[in-house]
Amino acid sequence: MSITPRVKEILSWYGSDSPGTLANLYRLLMTGKLAGTGKLVILPVDQGFEHGPARSFAPNPAGYDPEYHVQLAIEAGCNAYAAPLGFIEAVAAKYAGQIPFILKLNNSDSLSKMGGAPISAVTSSVSEAVRLGCSAIGYTIYPASDARNEQYEALAQLTEEAKAAGLVVVVWSYPRGQGVTKDGETAVDIAAYAAQIAAQLGAHIIKVKPPKDLVELAEAKKVYEKYQIPTKTLAERVRHVVQSAFNGKRIVIFSGGEAKGTEEVLAEIKGIAEGGAFGSIMGRNAFQRPKAEAIKLLADVMKIYGA
Amino acid sequence: MSITPRVKEILSWYGSDSPGTLANLYRLLMTGKLAGTGKLVILPVDQGFEHGPARSFAPNPAGYDPEYHVQLAIEAGCNAYAAPLGFIEAVAAKYAGQIPFILKLNNSDSLSKMGGAPISAVTSSVSEAVRLGCSAIGYTIYPASDARNEQYEALAQLTEEAKAAGLVVVVWSYPRGQGVTKDGETAVDIAAYAAQIAAQLGAHIIKVKPPKDLVELAEAKKVYEKYQIPTKTLAERVRHVVQSAFNGKRIVIFSGGEAKGTEEVLAEIKGIAEGGAFGSIMGRNAFQRPKAEAIKLLADVMKIYGA
Amino acid sequence: MSITPRVKEILSWYGSDSPGTLANLYRLLMTGKLAGTGKLVILPVDQGFEHGPARSFAPNPAGYDPEYHVQLAIEAGCNAYAAPLGFIEAVAAKYAGQIPFILKLNNSDSLSKMGGAPISAVTSSVSEAVRLGCSAIGYTIYPASDARNEQYEALAQLTEEAKAAGLVVVVWSYPRGQGVTKDGETAVDIAAYAAQIAAQLGAHIIKVKPPKDLVELAEAKKVYEKYQIPTKTLAERVRHVVQSAFNGKRIVIFSGGEAKGTEEVLAEIKGIAEGGAFGSIMGRNAFQRPKAEAIKLLADVMKIYGA
Amino acid sequence: MSITPRVKEILSWYGSDSPGTLANLYRLLMTGKLAGTGKLVILPVDQGFEHGPARSFAPNPAGYDPEYHVQLAIEAGCNAYAAPLGFIEAVAAKYAGQIPFILKLNNSDSLSKMGGAPISAVTSSVSEAVRLGCSAIGYTIYPASDARNEQYEALAQLTEEAKAAGLVVVVWSYPRGQGVTKDGETAVDIAAYAAQIAAQLGAHIIKVKPPKDLVELAEAKKVYEKYQIPTKTLAERVRHVVQSAFNGKRIVIFSGGEAKGTEEVLAEIKGIAEGGAFGSIMGRNAFQRPKAEAIKLLADVMKIYGA
Amino acid sequence: MSITPRVKEILSWYGSDSPGTLANLYRLLMTGKLAGTGKLVILPVDQGFEHGPARSFAPNPAGYDPEYHVQLAIEAGCNAYAAPLGFIEAVAAKYAGQIPFILKLNNSDSLSKMGGAPISAVTSSVSEAVRLGCSAIGYTIYPASDARNEQYEALAQLTEEAKAAGLVVVVWSYPRGQGVTKDGETAVDIAAYAAQIAAQLGAHIIKVKPPKDLVELAEAKKVYEKYQIPTKTLAERVRHVVQSAFNGKRIVIFSGGEAKGTEEVLAEIKGIAEGGAFGSIMGRNAFQRPKAEAIKLLADVMKIYGA
Repeated sequence: MSITPRVKEILSWYGSDSPGTLANLYRLLMTGKLAGTGKLVILPVDQGFEHGPARSFAPNPAGYDPEYHVQLAIEAGCNAYAAPLGFIEAVAAKYAGQIPFILKLNNSDSLSKMGGAPISAVTSSVSEAVRLGCSAIGYTIYPASDARNEQYEALAQLTEEAKAAGLVVVVWSYPRGQGVTKDGETAVDIAAYAAQIAAQLGAHIIKVKPPKDLVELAEAKKVYEKYQIPTKTLAERVRHVVQSAFNGKRIVIFSGGEAKGTEEVLAEIKGIAEGGAFGSIMGRNAFQRPKAEAIKLLADVMKIYGA
Repeated sequence: MSITPRVKEILSWYGSDSPGTLANLYRLLMTGKLAGTGKLVILPVDQGFEHGPARSFAPNPAGYDPEYHVQLAIEAGCNAYAAPLGFIEAVAAKYAGQIPFILKLNNSDSLSKMGGAPISAVTSSVSEAVRLGCSAIGYTIYPASDARNEQYEALAQLTEEAKAAGLVVVVWSYPRGQGVTKDGETAVDIAAYAAQIAAQLGAHIIKVKPPKDLVELAEAKKVYEKYQIPTKTLAERVRHVVQSAFNGKRIVIFSGGEAKGTEEVLAEIKGIAEGGAFGSIMGRNAFQRPKAEAIKLLADVMKIYGA
Repeated sequence: MSITPRVKEILSWYGSDSPGTLANLYRLLMTGKLAGTGKLVILPVDQGFEHGPARSFAPNPAGYDPEYHVQLAIEAGCNAYAAPLGFIEAVAAKYAGQIPFILKLNNSDSLSKMGGAPISAVTSSVSEAVRLGCSAIGYTIYPASDARNEQYEALAQLTEEAKAAGLVVVVWSYPRGQGVTKDGETAVDIAAYAAQIAAQLGAHIIKVKPPKDLVELAEAKKVYEKYQIPTKTLAERVRHVVQSAFNGKRIVIFSGGEAKGTEEVLAEIKGIAEGGAFGSIMGRNAFQRPKAEAIKLLADVMKIYGA
Repeated sequence: MSITPRVKEILSWYGSDSPGTLANLYRLLMTGKLAGTGKLVILPVDQGFEHGPARSFAPNPAGYDPEYHVQLAIEAGCNAYAAPLGFIEAVAAKYAGQIPFILKLNNSDSLSKMGGAPISAVTSSVSEAVRLGCSAIGYTIYPASDARNEQYEALAQLTEEAKAAGLVVVVWSYPRGQGVTKDGETAVDIAAYAAQIAAQLGAHIIKVKPPKDLVELAEAKKVYEKYQIPTKTLAERVRHVVQSAFNGKRIVIFSGGEAKGTEEVLAEIKGIAEGGAFGSIMGRNAFQRPKAEAIKLLADVMKIYGA
Repeated sequence: MSITPRVKEILSWYGSDSPGTLANLYRLLMTGKLAGTGKLVILPVDQGFEHGPARSFAPNPAGYDPEYHVQLAIEAGCNAYAAPLGFIEAVAAKYAGQIPFILKLNNSDSLSKMGGAPISAVTSSVSEAVRLGCSAIGYTIYPASDARNEQYEALAQLTEEAKAAGLVVVVWSYPRGQGVTKDGETAVDIAAYAAQIAAQLGAHIIKVKPPKDLVELAEAKKVYEKYQIPTKTLAERVRHVVQSAFNGKRIVIFSGGEAKGTEEVLAEIKGIAEGGAFGSIMGRNAFQRPKAEAIKLLADVMKIYGA
């Protein structure tokens, strides 16, 4: 398949990037069932580290095996597969070139009860991503965490290194911590702000959570009311978040969160797609089902995005 | 247009700098409507990061798009355009050479309620500024913050790198934090001290806020009274601040602060210009108006400075 | 002895590693009485540093001498000998090549009563391991320690260096600290999680403690009950921990803990072996007995593993 | 003028230094009215940074201009001119070679009320000193500050770099902080200790404050009494401080402190000179007077030292 | 004098070291009156930094001069001279090659009353030791300090650098801080543990204090009683400490502590020598006496060790 006008247009927004990075962005956009549409569905599997192995893989024990996930991503026609070092390293040589890999560079386990600012450990590096033939690095920031500055600084350095190495930068931007209420973590102003921050930090692809009909910050509330920014429907909110990422000139994708029923998942995806999102990242809802069911669900999701 | 005697004079104050840095300083002084006058009007757009996207761009939604701002700066005849990594990267290739870029190397969002010392995250680097064809780096220090020493040290290192790379160093010197009262942040002694510190740290261009008729520090008060330093009018205070930056041998420009009415803006600029300032940096007052109005306002400002 | 099908299979799981690392993994698997079986018994001697010399060596004073231990490991037919810098350096030249060395890169003494997060000092480096002809580095992490992120980050960097130098990475994964109860340190969910974390961090060989029939974390408990994960016998628990390390595609070995009677030791090893463990690491139970007895015990252990 | 026996003798104490450093030490000792005498009078101007511009320069507004000070130092026949980066950079090219420059590498402003340990910001570097053609670096330590160890470590690194670059190291050793009473900051035992520490840290030239007839530390008091160390006159105390800097084999000079009357200044200098000091460093007492008066005062000071 | 069988034997314990390091160890063992015996007496002079100049040198004012000490060490026939940067640098060129120098890399003054963990400042570096022609570096650790891990890590890095540069590593291992009672700092179990830690960290020569007949740690007490480790006489305790340093295969020397009477000093040395120590390090007891007396005392000490 040769490049489509839409992919050409998207690549044109990243004109300051090197041919190496553009080639990897091309790979992400030209792989799988959504190739050429400008939309992406990515399979991420970092829950073994984040929540522990049994909570992640007991529902579908095939998932204890790192090969299961990369095979699932390939068979389902995903655009990319994202995971921490161990999972990527276990399959990188055997599946080299078959699907773009996103090496998740920081991770957080559930084993500390330490209070204070949310922060993840940096568990790998750009040079490991290069060694393993990855197309992108992934990094999570927690805007609203009191440790956010350290995270922005670490990301800035990794972003510079990644771009110099011709990689794409994917940022998980999850507001969390002392600067925001629990409920406000997915408020629409906060989600839009999270997307803007990731974009200003140089992300090529930004992952946020679907935003709620709620405006968290008092200063922002005045503006949302004065300019009557529509936030009633999920599609409207998604549209505002995408606009907040350089007027839609940065790729913004949405996560699904906790595992839930098929109908709920698809209903949410429809709203997200209608709002102009560039796609979805879907982990537990995919790998915790039996393989055939997962492939069916992912196919339905991709259909919504135009596959 | 060829170099003017005034620009020659200004460049002569930076005799220890490399030809590379002098060439970039020349570009800043020889671009736009004020080219050759020795005055500068700069468009800065870091509010998306600092205050969030809706608060910054909802008043004029064209501003969600990074191209809008660089086009505005060029069309209005500004001397330079300043922004964080994401906004610069989005336009650097397409507008390469058309206007000097200032890469803002540190930024602070409004998402943490953390108390303590004001400090920004370092979100980019000198080598990124070089890669993106920028003429200058920008860096904010908060004198009076308990974290000021870390900031001075970071700036010192970036300044050394920037000069070695032939870039100009622009310092936003904003007193803030535990060493100063809220009211005293723009006291005239504090503003003059802020300008002096930035100059001693090696800044080529210093940005401060317009000073108030107030002397904050007790030790300073004695001196201001004894030597009858005039601080009644804005022009007198600006003159003292400019004097405090190496007797006017460092370029000092002034910001406008919050968006306000056109008459207020122009009245303030007149006072600043009368005091011998080297120009203004104007963000929200420009990009939050419709484009035609913004261009008109900037033209009026430039007229005051002698365009 | 030439390579066996089982060792070939094990090496195939590490396909992303360099020939240098594979060669050292081969050495670990093809040395001693268990050569070729895919099982390992390793002699570790870091107790002099961890507990002090008299507590470690007074029961068998020959152990004050660093040569004693390497000789014991060789004569008993162990797969490898692990120790801190001083002990390895004392014997590395004289016994070069006779047995694979694992340089233990971090260590913790018993001399501080400081509260807070468990953390070890990094006492040596990958380049020292290379200089001393070691086949592997060893590193201890304490998941559930509030300082775990620093440890994961240090390990990530050492792992990258070690792999670039062709070394094997052995991780001691010992949950301990504020995120876990004293009793829960060896709970089966915690041990499985500890193995998963080490695997995701890129460990080639993972060392954990034998797990207890206890599920520590509330979130995990629901899953263990819902999916009826068997944890009654030691063999079942070991099987679950091995599964949690990439479905058995990472080498997981078990420690014995405090010195105890021969029968108890052998009974425990039987359970561990039955659960599919890749072997044992046995320190005090070996070097605190007279040499002949130690060699007999190690021989019995190796027999259980199929020597 | 060719080298004198006294300068030869002084240089012989620095036999482990490189020819580059010896050449710069030679320049310091062979410049100005005191050239060849082995004595030094240095003009330092860091008060703009330390106390603010008006407090420093309003008494003699010519001093706002960086050229004023270097001209004053040259016309008065000083051995060297010391200042922070900005002031040096403003004149380095224009006055290159006309007088040795000492780049003051750390500085502290008066804008923070932060309690705790006194510490300065490192505001420049050895490589900047090299770029600007300086003969020496200057660095302030605060022995008795709880942050003194960080300062000693930073100085140690800068000293090593400076010596490798052929520069001279000048240390301002000012006891201050929680380890000493306000009054004891200039106690004779503390001043002697401060000189010893700077010497042990590798300083070529040590600057301390004139010591008071007071012994601060209880342990020291016993020794001063037992061995009847004379501390009644300023000359005796200065002699003890000079002795404490390697028996007079390191150059020790004294500051004058706050601006005061001419008679007071000269009386103090006489005591200092009588005690065998190597000279004085005189800032505010010089640059806050009209130029002619300053030159007259400096000439009188130099006369006392044998010019 | 050519190498003796005993020195050959000692060197054989360091078989993993480079020829460069072995040559420097040879120099330490083959210099002075004890050359060839395998015993060492070292003169250390860091008290000027640690306690201040008057407390250190007023009893014998010749000691203010750095040349005094190196001459004393040479004339008395010591194996080496140890001091901080300033003292070494003052004599390194003039006395190059005449006696091995040990550059003391960290030091602590008595000027801070800061509570918390004992820690020294790193005041020089391995590259300075190389530049100054030293044979060894010296470094102090405080096991039982809450800051011990930072110290072990700094030492580990310096040790690696020193060995790469062909230098010998001498570690002062002084338990002190929150993990040990004041009385327990020299308990026999603590001293033995301190020797073990230094040995495991890769020290070639270990300096501890003479141990008391006291067992500090409860866990250790059980072992000392059960195995009836003899600790009644100083000789027995020294023997245990030497055994704890790799069964006597690392050089362990003992300090004398505060200045005291000649008889007391010699009595203590006899006990130490009888216990199999490798020698003594003697500072204040030597340099605070008149030179002739000091030489006599050192000669008597050396006689005890077999000179």
